Amino acid sequence: MSFPSARQIVAQRIIETTSRWAAGATLDEIRAGFVQLLRGPTPGEVDEVEFAGMRATWTHPPERKTAGIVLYLHGGGFQIGSPASHKSLICRLAAAAGVSILTPNYRLAPEHRFPAQVEDGLHVYKVLMAAGHSPEKIAIAGDSAGGNLALVLAQQARDLGLGQPAALALISPWLDLTLRGESYTSRAEKDIFSKPEALRAMARTYIGKGGDAAHPLANPLEASLANLPPMLVHAGDFDITLDDSTLLKARADAAGAACTLKVWPEMYHHFQVFAELPEAQESIEEIGAFLRQALQ
Amino acid sequence: MSFPSARQIVAQRIIETTSRWAAGATLDEIRAGFVQLLRGPTPGEVDEVEFAGMRATWTHPPERKTAGIVLYLHGGGFQIGSPASHKSLICRLAAAAGVSILTPNYRLAPEHRFPAQVEDGLHVYKVLMAAGHSPEKIAIAGDSAGGNLALVLAQQARDLGLGQPAALALISPWLDLTLRGESYTSRAEKDIFSKPEALRAMARTYIGKGGDAAHPLANPLEASLANLPPMLVHAGDFDITLDDSTLLKARADAAGAACTLKVWPEMYHHFQVFAELPEAQESIEEIGAFLRQALQ
Repeated sequence: MSFPSARQIVAQRIIETTSRWAAGATLDEIRAGFVQLLRGPTPGEVDEVEFAGMRATWTHPPERKTAGIVLYLHGGGFQIGSPASHKSLICRLAAAAGVSILTPNYRLAPEHRFPAQVEDGLHVYKVLMAAGHSPEKIAIAGDSAGGNLALVLAQQARDLGLGQPAALALISPWLDLTLRGESYTSRAEKDIFSKPEALRAMARTYIGKGGDAAHPLANPLEASLANLPPMLVHAGDFDITLDDSTLLKARADAAGAACTLKVWPEMYHHFQVFAELPEAQESIEEIGAFLRQALQ
Repeated sequence: MSFPSARQIVAQRIIETTSRWAAGATLDEIRAGFVQLLRGPTPGEVDEVEFAGMRATWTHPPERKTAGIVLYLHGGGFQIGSPASHKSLICRLAAAAGVSILTPNYRLAPEHRFPAQVEDGLHVYKVLMAAGHSPEKIAIAGDSAGGNLALVLAQQARDLGLGQPAALALISPWLDLTLRGESYTSRAEKDIFSKPEALRAMARTYIGKGGDAAHPLANPLEASLANLPPMLVHAGDFDITLDDSTLLKARADAAGAACTLKVWPEMYHHFQVFAELPEAQESIEEIGAFLRQALQ
């Protein structure tokens, strides 16, 4: 007899939850279940605030090592997720980076469809600047759908002539809402967390009927990747969105942008949310070091 | 024949302007004239922003020496003045301190009476905190009526259990709206800038008919001075509001608060606005050093 590994324990929790969802659950149940599923340690301090007209959290690390800040856009397919669901991930990232993180509770679909989420991200960025944060002291980060929003926000900051953020950190960014990448097929079985049919449904909900999933504000790969801040991208090798990251890396290289991609063997879509996984902590430490350095 | 001194030149400008006002001018003319009268050099960079629902400016020094910030509440009897009128003073203070300064365009009387100005100050302070500025990295400063608002704000932060700012810098603070101090008589001739009758009229406009000028949010000397951050007060010896500063110093000492008062010989009410005066630059350098040290 042997004890189950951390990886097995996490996998069991994921499969239990996602099969309950597959068997039929309301959106409210899925949103609440997402909070439960992503629970973990929360080092540091979390303050709930009202910011830029939204609820938001400021996550302060146990030890702050830079005066810069991170604007974090959470994942959840534009439809679920919140500062509450991502509390542990963001606390761990704040601690690893030694930086305070702002996590806005941006509007979700289907109550609010594209481009409400994009507008909220831009609005928060503008209000941060109006509040005296220099762009070069702001890094933007996000996972999955939040990685999409983070990249779109950096492109908007560039195109609107706002100051450029110091850095972009993207965790399993979900960029192509039409799921054209080969990984959406080849990793569909291996990715125990995210499934193509779920992402397809969330994309439809986000974009709405007759909407254009190839709009550059919905798919940042449709817009230029030139003149963006340094990017760090972490994805899993068992991650259905892997091809979005490899395509981003290739396009960024071609555009002369500084982009580093790290692919984690056997890891699935935004595995970093699971604190029990040694790989999660390792990835977060690396992303934290990147953010801290960019904000120094 | 001798050339006029800087002091004479400034005095002439002041007297020309204030006698025009005394001869009869609309509020709009006085507001516009105040901007002209206070014009001066503007080192650094001034960004106009929308902040906390108000227009405001961020004044960035040529060289920033601390990550902290100053919230500046301008003077003008609660009735005139703006980030525009105080632009030169605030640029010179930002440069001397090596710190960025936020100057909100709070609501003015008679369009908005007490306590609208107090509410605006508190609101800005709360939004700064929601924007990730720790109270210990915020200093509050103000001149004349703005010195009143600055002190009231620090008292409110204390009484409401918000974090305490790092420091308070008050330039000729106008605290007693009933002008009971002896200096309002003894300095009435010597103060070429401010006259008791003008302040009395502005107090009436601020408080409104039947209002209570002794309300602790209108006269901070009516509220406790205990447990406030370190205070630096600069006033003139030819300043009608001088007694407000000496009374503040005495009460603060009695309450165990750290308060330093400096009285400038032959200088009138908030003379620091006149860049031509060597004393103005000297005073601003001292206040700047105090702010920088408090925010380090």
